[in-house]
Amino acid sequence: MIKVGIVGGTGYTGVELLRLLAPHPEVQLTAITSRKEDGLPVADMFPSLRGHVDLAFSSPDKADLTECDVVFFATPHGVAMAQAPELLAAGVKVIDLAADFRLKDQATFEKWYKIPHTAPQLLEEAAYGLPELNREEIQKARLIANPGCYPTTMQLGFYPLLKAGIVDAGNLIADCKSGVSGAGRKAEIGTLFSESSDNFKAYGVHGHRHTPETAAQLQRFTEQQVGLLFTPHLVPMIRGMHATLYARLNQDISNEALQALFEAQYRDAEFVDVMPFGAHPETRSTRGSNMLRIALHRPDNGNTVVILVVQDNLVKGASGQAVQCMNLMFGFPESTGLKQIALLP
Amino acid sequence: MIKVGIVGGTGYTGVELLRLLAPHPEVQLTAITSRKEDGLPVADMFPSLRGHVDLAFSSPDKADLTECDVVFFATPHGVAMAQAPELLAAGVKVIDLAADFRLKDQATFEKWYKIPHTAPQLLEEAAYGLPELNREEIQKARLIANPGCYPTTMQLGFYPLLKAGIVDAGNLIADCKSGVSGAGRKAEIGTLFSESSDNFKAYGVHGHRHTPETAAQLQRFTEQQVGLLFTPHLVPMIRGMHATLYARLNQDISNEALQALFEAQYRDAEFVDVMPFGAHPETRSTRGSNMLRIALHRPDNGNTVVILVVQDNLVKGASGQAVQCMNLMFGFPESTGLKQIALLP
Amino acid sequence: MIKVGIVGGTGYTGVELLRLLAPHPEVQLTAITSRKEDGLPVADMFPSLRGHVDLAFSSPDKADLTECDVVFFATPHGVAMAQAPELLAAGVKVIDLAADFRLKDQATFEKWYKIPHTAPQLLEEAAYGLPELNREEIQKARLIANPGCYPTTMQLGFYPLLKAGIVDAGNLIADCKSGVSGAGRKAEIGTLFSESSDNFKAYGVHGHRHTPETAAQLQRFTEQQVGLLFTPHLVPMIRGMHATLYARLNQDISNEALQALFEAQYRDAEFVDVMPFGAHPETRSTRGSNMLRIALHRPDNGNTVVILVVQDNLVKGASGQAVQCMNLMFGFPESTGLKQIALLP
Amino acid sequence: MIKVGIVGGTGYTGVELLRLLAPHPEVQLTAITSRKEDGLPVADMFPSLRGHVDLAFSSPDKADLTECDVVFFATPHGVAMAQAPELLAAGVKVIDLAADFRLKDQATFEKWYKIPHTAPQLLEEAAYGLPELNREEIQKARLIANPGCYPTTMQLGFYPLLKAGIVDAGNLIADCKSGVSGAGRKAEIGTLFSESSDNFKAYGVHGHRHTPETAAQLQRFTEQQVGLLFTPHLVPMIRGMHATLYARLNQDISNEALQALFEAQYRDAEFVDVMPFGAHPETRSTRGSNMLRIALHRPDNGNTVVILVVQDNLVKGASGQAVQCMNLMFGFPESTGLKQIALLP
Repeated sequence: MIKVGIVGGTGYTGVELLRLLAPHPEVQLTAITSRKEDGLPVADMFPSLRGHVDLAFSSPDKADLTECDVVFFATPHGVAMAQAPELLAAGVKVIDLAADFRLKDQATFEKWYKIPHTAPQLLEEAAYGLPELNREEIQKARLIANPGCYPTTMQLGFYPLLKAGIVDAGNLIADCKSGVSGAGRKAEIGTLFSESSDNFKAYGVHGHRHTPETAAQLQRFTEQQVGLLFTPHLVPMIRGMHATLYARLNQDISNEALQALFEAQYRDAEFVDVMPFGAHPETRSTRGSNMLRIALHRPDNGNTVVILVVQDNLVKGASGQAVQCMNLMFGFPESTGLKQIALLP
Repeated sequence: MIKVGIVGGTGYTGVELLRLLAPHPEVQLTAITSRKEDGLPVADMFPSLRGHVDLAFSSPDKADLTECDVVFFATPHGVAMAQAPELLAAGVKVIDLAADFRLKDQATFEKWYKIPHTAPQLLEEAAYGLPELNREEIQKARLIANPGCYPTTMQLGFYPLLKAGIVDAGNLIADCKSGVSGAGRKAEIGTLFSESSDNFKAYGVHGHRHTPETAAQLQRFTEQQVGLLFTPHLVPMIRGMHATLYARLNQDISNEALQALFEAQYRDAEFVDVMPFGAHPETRSTRGSNMLRIALHRPDNGNTVVILVVQDNLVKGASGQAVQCMNLMFGFPESTGLKQIALLP
Repeated sequence: MIKVGIVGGTGYTGVELLRLLAPHPEVQLTAITSRKEDGLPVADMFPSLRGHVDLAFSSPDKADLTECDVVFFATPHGVAMAQAPELLAAGVKVIDLAADFRLKDQATFEKWYKIPHTAPQLLEEAAYGLPELNREEIQKARLIANPGCYPTTMQLGFYPLLKAGIVDAGNLIADCKSGVSGAGRKAEIGTLFSESSDNFKAYGVHGHRHTPETAAQLQRFTEQQVGLLFTPHLVPMIRGMHATLYARLNQDISNEALQALFEAQYRDAEFVDVMPFGAHPETRSTRGSNMLRIALHRPDNGNTVVILVVQDNLVKGASGQAVQCMNLMFGFPESTGLKQIALLP
Repeated sequence: MIKVGIVGGTGYTGVELLRLLAPHPEVQLTAITSRKEDGLPVADMFPSLRGHVDLAFSSPDKADLTECDVVFFATPHGVAMAQAPELLAAGVKVIDLAADFRLKDQATFEKWYKIPHTAPQLLEEAAYGLPELNREEIQKARLIANPGCYPTTMQLGFYPLLKAGIVDAGNLIADCKSGVSGAGRKAEIGTLFSESSDNFKAYGVHGHRHTPETAAQLQRFTEQQVGLLFTPHLVPMIRGMHATLYARLNQDISNEALQALFEAQYRDAEFVDVMPFGAHPETRSTRGSNMLRIALHRPDNGNTVVILVVQDNLVKGASGQAVQCMNLMFGFPESTGLKQIALLP
């Protein structure tokens, strides 16, 4: 049993961590902090947790997080970088679900996130928390930068093609669609039910923070010069993410060989499901589960490969992946506490 | 052509007024005020109005509303009472979509709305804007208190039974359900898509402001001592309101006679559709239209009548009804500009 | 480990049984029948089960259900009554999720379900599968009639008041709302997305099969003469059920005493959560879980008690309750395999 | 006033035609046929039409469509081709909302629609009903092939770039998203609320009938050799279509010049709204209206142009466009009866 703390338990990734960690057989939930909700029982804010979580939120000042074995940051960008150095110094491992340690390059971080980085000395050390591409680093890490939800789908979808060097790496297109929970639990007009229900739109087409993260990591993992055009859209559903990825083949290859490439790559990945060639994965097939599903297409047998990727943005796209990293960091079997079957319908 | 002003055009009843008034053949939109959005073209905030509304929001200070023939207040409670006296003095008619003049009794208002009433001298004069029950007063009025959305359904549903004196007026139950747009266009967590989609709940069961409004008006219109238990619920849909009303018969009466009672009552009401006995009206049959539909039921031929009432909460429940009142006040045919057919599907 | 068979695995209660039984530590899934889908891997129809369920559907002729310890019928009404006698004779326990054995009275069954009952000799023996009110019978039963979804909420909500004899049992009103999955996985126009999304309506107000079931069982459990008016409505959400129950007190009682009554009744019920007096339970707080939540209200401190009840119609309202019964029948701890936390958001 | 008939009034394009034509000042609705619903008042099937449409469905045998000036076919593929020759011979104009006359090439039609074409002699004559690109032909036509919903967005989005010859015509990508009503009003499991709500998926990625239609028409209109990769997706909303189009520039051009190109092209198009460069159009800004909105993007100022296009699939994507064609065919102002403002929220 390890002692686990959560900083920022009032958002969607926070409550999702609680759903996954409360029944986790190796975890003892020790502290959940919220400055604003100090003293409020967690289950009063999230009645789904009644009977499962007895903790109350505590003010960051009062909670002694240094007693924990690991602390998750389910906070806005900028919080983890402020507190991680002290925790690490006290021997506590840190998993940041925000962006503070996702970009190795400080200048790029500051350009896209528009805040100064206060712990640049940790950028190099932080392990990028995408187990399927970076398992060994994660196992040895003290500090994890949990990937963004979109980057998870884009990287796992493009990786086998880039690694094999069979597509034009400089001209990737990722047309991605996210459920509304990706915007977080913040009081904003744009994500009100009456604004986002029965509606569909693109956003941030001019440029999104997940583009440099995805491009840089893919480059690091595949040693290819990546050019990526990423277009995010908002879907009127709570959870779910669908990536439609387009890559141009630079050589002749059969559909069978393409399929074999993906199956080989993810043979041992418990949470990546390579579906039959030509399948149409649905986001709901991952609702509440840590699975990510991939299917390949080759329209008109042309030279463009279309890769469809789905996941639950709050699980494999955030809190589930963070728990998967935790399992690796502490030597638990990778899928411990993560075997929930998707809720369908 | 009359000159029309709107105070508070940035909420849902505001944009709905614009949708109805922009093509209204007797109306010239003259001013739309918003302190916060001064100078912003209205169509920049609501792209649905591009090509239909050329006005920009103007600060209340700059807009000369006294040039208007009528001013609508699509504002929070408390704004109309502050500005109405001056406008009325300048010969401008006023239609308030909020609650400032709905309750004749100042103490009751202040109890439920928790703000002092600053224009109590107008309470008696204000005409309650429910044309089907109060047409003559409205035609002569300078100042209209537009009914709440729930009260419209409850009053039109219960009225014929109470007027005929055939039900136990002291034990009415109204189990009502509203789409989320009824909560307005405010940045709040509770009405986020991720909070209210795929969910259903009751709220305010202990007591809701629309209970005293409904009871008092029904009492005034029917001269019966009304006891009303009202339970509001939130439905994951944008527009639409459904009232399920329960009344106990105090005498023997056939279903045919019940049905005849309602048909006679609303024979000349263009916007009240009495459906066949036993029908199940759907809210979507009124989406975007000013129609309110009613159907009667008598489960197991017992002594309880169930009245089902549907409307679009933003049209007959708010802005459409306000335009209907305007038409009456200026002698236009009652349905001018209000003949939109509901959007189905 | 017991061997479990499912007859009719292609509907929503079928796939929900699979979600709950596949990871159940005491269960070995042995056979899933479907005449139409013989040979199709279950996970091809429900991709959420990929990696969790390896079985294929088999034709009823081929599947030897008599090898099972228990067989669930997730079928339309009429199927279980045809097959149960043979299975019981072979020593197999039977849990019917349909209505075949819910009504003790054959004539009432045939009146409401419009099919002849082919196994009336089993009506008396069948245990009504509502553990909170009928645990002992269930533990000893060979044949379970799993309750309807609406009846579960109505019975657990009204029971403590009726048992205590403090309300007018002859005048109960149940205004209930269900998610669309309650209509099942059948190709029908009325439950298409484009018909039932962004819409709300009542249905079957003239009379619904769940009324006699609820009234008869409540009468049996409480020995009161029950008069029930039940109005079902359709909510544009996938899962979830909300009952708003109205009962008239026939004596003076404090709110504290009311609350104490419910808390005492359900103190040992793991799956009934009595929330604080005046709470507003949301259906989503039970999404995917076997919890049913209850909250009491007393509007205006009058003599009507309003009881709010929520559950997931596919879990506590169907498949979860069936598994709960199975646990009791085989002596497993009642909550085995049923501890899933609701998915929120 | 012209006499108008509708063949197949029970689907979504049928009821949408009725919504638009009932209040059309130049139209007298004369006959609505349905073999199955003969005698049923139209408003009994679609209560939204109560008070607006008095007609009943009539069997095709009884309805004398040759008395009409124009007949709309809101039918499955194959019906219009069977009846059009006789109607045209009788001097009746025909507007087909299905695909019978969209493809000039009989073999291509038969390959994609898998039925023999029974009126190939009309293929050449039929005018493609996309007014913005084909107004003159439509004005003179007896027979209109109303475009598919997806092709309308793709053609109007790509056209100015192709016409100007500034993009690589052989490598167009169209990632399109449609509301569920596009699947029609058919009893099917895949479009049930419980299957398509809170879900997102691609479909038909291997090949869709709208690809050859779009490519062929764009080729005809622009005289460029078009290569198009089209990926359709299903969005959990009733109405609305969003196209995200990707085209590679083959020359240097400023964003201002790109924007000017589109504004010049659609200056006189009442129903095409070119939004400011960099805008993100939302589908709801067209809900219920005949507007199509376009916005241009140039991510990272690279050499790919992203064109965002939105419309209501049932209005500009189907019935509204058909009425627009009718207006042109009979010399009415193009926007007659089509000035509805979108319903927002």
